[in-house]
Amino acid sequence: MSQIIRHGVTRRWSDAVVNQGVAYFVEVPDNPEADAATQFHQVLSQIDARLQQLGGDRTRLLQVLIYLPEAGDLAAFNEIWDAWVPEGHAPSRACVHAPLAAAGYRVELVITAAV
Amino acid sequence: MSQIIRHGVTRRWSDAVVNQGVAYFVEVPDNPEADAATQFHQVLSQIDARLQQLGGDRTRLLQVLIYLPEAGDLAAFNEIWDAWVPEGHAPSRACVHAPLAAAGYRVELVITAAV
Amino acid sequence: MSQIIRHGVTRRWSDAVVNQGVAYFVEVPDNPEADAATQFHQVLSQIDARLQQLGGDRTRLLQVLIYLPEAGDLAAFNEIWDAWVPEGHAPSRACVHAPLAAAGYRVELVITAAV
Repeated sequence: MSQIIRHGVTRRWSDAVVNQGVAYFVEVPDNPEADAATQFHQVLSQIDARLQQLGGDRTRLLQVLIYLPEAGDLAAFNEIWDAWVPEGHAPSRACVHAPLAAAGYRVELVITAAV
Repeated sequence: MSQIIRHGVTRRWSDAVVNQGVAYFVEVPDNPEADAATQFHQVLSQIDARLQQLGGDRTRLLQVLIYLPEAGDLAAFNEIWDAWVPEGHAPSRACVHAPLAAAGYRVELVITAAV
Repeated sequence: MSQIIRHGVTRRWSDAVVNQGVAYFVEVPDNPEADAATQFHQVLSQIDARLQQLGGDRTRLLQVLIYLPEAGDLAAFNEIWDAWVPEGHAPSRACVHAPLAAAGYRVELVITAAV
């Protein structure tokens, strides 16, 4: 069977899982006590770091599911997102507003990337 | 690294992203002011058009995540969905009720297909 | 084009879809009238059975999206989940709280696995 490589494995989840050149990972901001804009910058920086760890970069995103618990955060998120996405390399993207499992987080991103 | 082909690239998202024979795309109805049933027919027609653009058709769906903001729309959506899915080729499917990022839309579909 | 293998095909969905060594499936507990803990054990056992059917096992999970409609269920779910996940093989994982399409269900899991 195909090889599965796991990064940052804990009892509950792995930080990233790679199989057949596709990486699956989920990011929440490191600091859930920061304000929304800081959290949005943070989580996108974390994606950069994760992709670098996996041998890719932000031009390699395939799909991003955005969970944004507060609907009023959408405009601020989009502004930071638009500045971060490399021109010509935007992923497929969906966004819903739903409460997250972990308190305080203003965003959770489910990412599929080619690495 | 594997090739990534993007269709309909904007600053914020791509309409569809293809990598290693797998297509990732998200559809909302073209007209968020239409009634629910019209939106449901519309979004499924858009999937047909997208799959045709990508060299596939509705027998090639792997997984569909359904975001249906109004729980009361489920029966109407299912009736239209059931008539649309080709017999013997139904995808894996999940459905949750959560508010969408964009106002007025009665459905958003996150699609994975083999093309 | 690549081969798509579907298991448990109904008019509305397939129980599992396999393409290029990746399995896509969605599980809700068999008995939505059971208490939450019973439902959580049930749905994880169903994943075991599904993976076995597909020629894999619980070490082959890539990503799991957890829809948990009642936020208060998280601790109980995590306890059962942590005991079930094989050490060193945890998948990527995201969790949101949103109402499910089907009444009574305390959890719905969207699974991607390498088989």
